[in-house]
Amino acid sequence: MNKLDYITRQLAKAQKKRFEHYVVTRIWHLLNDLSIKFVTQQYVSRPDGRALTDIFFPQLQIHIEVDEGYHKKLIDEDRLREADIINATGHEIIRIDVTQKIEAINAEIDQVIQRIKQKKVDSTSFSPWDIEFDYSPEKFIGKGFIDISDDCSFFRKHEAASCFGKSFKNYSLQYGEVQHPTELNKSLWFPKLYANEKWNNLISNDEKIITEYSKSEDIQLTIEKVLKKGYLNRIVFARVKSSLGDTMYRFKGEYELDLLNTNSVNGLIWRKVSDRVNTYKSTEAH
Amino acid sequence: MNKLDYITRQLAKAQKKRFEHYVVTRIWHLLNDLSIKFVTQQYVSRPDGRALTDIFFPQLQIHIEVDEGYHKKLIDEDRLREADIINATGHEIIRIDVTQKIEAINAEIDQVIQRIKQKKVDSTSFSPWDIEFDYSPEKFIGKGFIDISDDCSFFRKHEAASCFGKSFKNYSLQYGEVQHPTELNKSLWFPKLYANEKWNNLISNDEKIITEYSKSEDIQLTIEKVLKKGYLNRIVFARVKSSLGDTMYRFKGEYELDLLNTNSVNGLIWRKVSDRVNTYKSTEAH
Repeated sequence: MNKLDYITRQLAKAQKKRFEHYVVTRIWHLLNDLSIKFVTQQYVSRPDGRALTDIFFPQLQIHIEVDEGYHKKLIDEDRLREADIINATGHEIIRIDVTQKIEAINAEIDQVIQRIKQKKVDSTSFSPWDIEFDYSPEKFIGKGFIDISDDCSFFRKHEAASCFGKSFKNYSLQYGEVQHPTELNKSLWFPKLYANEKWNNLISNDEKIITEYSKSEDIQLTIEKVLKKGYLNRIVFARVKSSLGDTMYRFKGEYELDLLNTNSVNGLIWRKVSDRVNTYKSTEAH
Repeated sequence: MNKLDYITRQLAKAQKKRFEHYVVTRIWHLLNDLSIKFVTQQYVSRPDGRALTDIFFPQLQIHIEVDEGYHKKLIDEDRLREADIINATGHEIIRIDVTQKIEAINAEIDQVIQRIKQKKVDSTSFSPWDIEFDYSPEKFIGKGFIDISDDCSFFRKHEAASCFGKSFKNYSLQYGEVQHPTELNKSLWFPKLYANEKWNNLISNDEKIITEYSKSEDIQLTIEKVLKKGYLNRIVFARVKSSLGDTMYRFKGEYELDLLNTNSVNGLIWRKVSDRVNTYKSTEAH
């Protein structure tokens, strides 16, 4: 995917809501900076629940919401189920009131653009949008870590797994969990964090707790298997549908099994212990 | 309709063609001039046939066509039938090649914007876009004429008719033809220039000839009625669906009956005699 593809696909999304569409296209074109990535219609988790923001700038953690003056935007629960929902706690949210005259709306948009530009200038960690590199293990191996603020997701499981000291080949990961190649007491986990055929998994709105709950086998049996494997810490890449409809694996942080609360009623309870995990160069000979 | 409504409706149209959509929204937002009117997806007649241009600036007679590198855009014949097709002979047509990289496309768009701005500066007849005034008889009465280059259309027949020396009331024009209030040997005509239940009317691509052909009565009878009424000149406002789907009456010029070629085989042949007609203040007491 090149930037033209990405941008045109993102901008063509807000079709039916013409005020939202006007604001989104105007911000993007007048910002006029190909080093800044954006996502339209981003699902977010906030302390007050799930929401949809109209344009999101991941490098700057700014969201824009178009306020049309009536009820909150309805969220399509069906799409939400598999959606790439990111935790927006601590992000900056700017509202634009489109119930005004066009001159006033345009003036508000100009201010938003100034704010975005200023935040880019002020940022100490800004790195330019590189659409190929964004999804490559090398980016995160080079940094030495993946942080929740990195807006990290991969198209394939083996790409995510290759950040941790071993180069995995495509199709080499058949299962949803694999041992961490370097930190051997941990695993890499690629769950669906929503109800599906086999699991009733769930992530809390603040993303601090993941509940793992098997549908197809006795919970007690699942717990025993997990304890037997012995990985009480998991680095989580959740399987999601991206904003453009692609299946992706979104970095969620490192979680640890909460042994006290894990039982056959609750299921397995995983608590976030870190927003950041270390990455490692592959130690294999080439 | 205010400008925000008009603009957001126009920009939301090119939804499914994402490259076209990118170019259209970018030109509009970066041009950033509310004094310039635009129309997206304008049907045009050109000497080489009918076409659809992606963004049209009526005051400047500039059209932009997005060139996606494959076949010409298909025209939906069904929508075309009633469409507001304007004669683009003599208009400037600029193509933008979207098969390039985004940086090159953006550079081409910047040049187009410079061209539009320059043409506005150079124009001796530019008057700022006034969305209410655009559709009011007063605008054209004030000018003293309506010219084909004025991009003149009205939402209602009585508004068009009120440009010629008498204030017509809404719903006062039941029929498709009414005597010109000032130039008494002429009429104002509001035809459908496409095949419909009662008529097989047609306008040529260069808009020089209108053929009037009745389906429901003997042509010879129609000819006799027209000759009896005695209006051998008609000022034509064709009934069309505007680019936003509204029914409107589009000024086409003054036409004169071609007596030599009018017969029961050809139907009535009307030839354009002028692109410009005079307007008149209402002479009624208020």
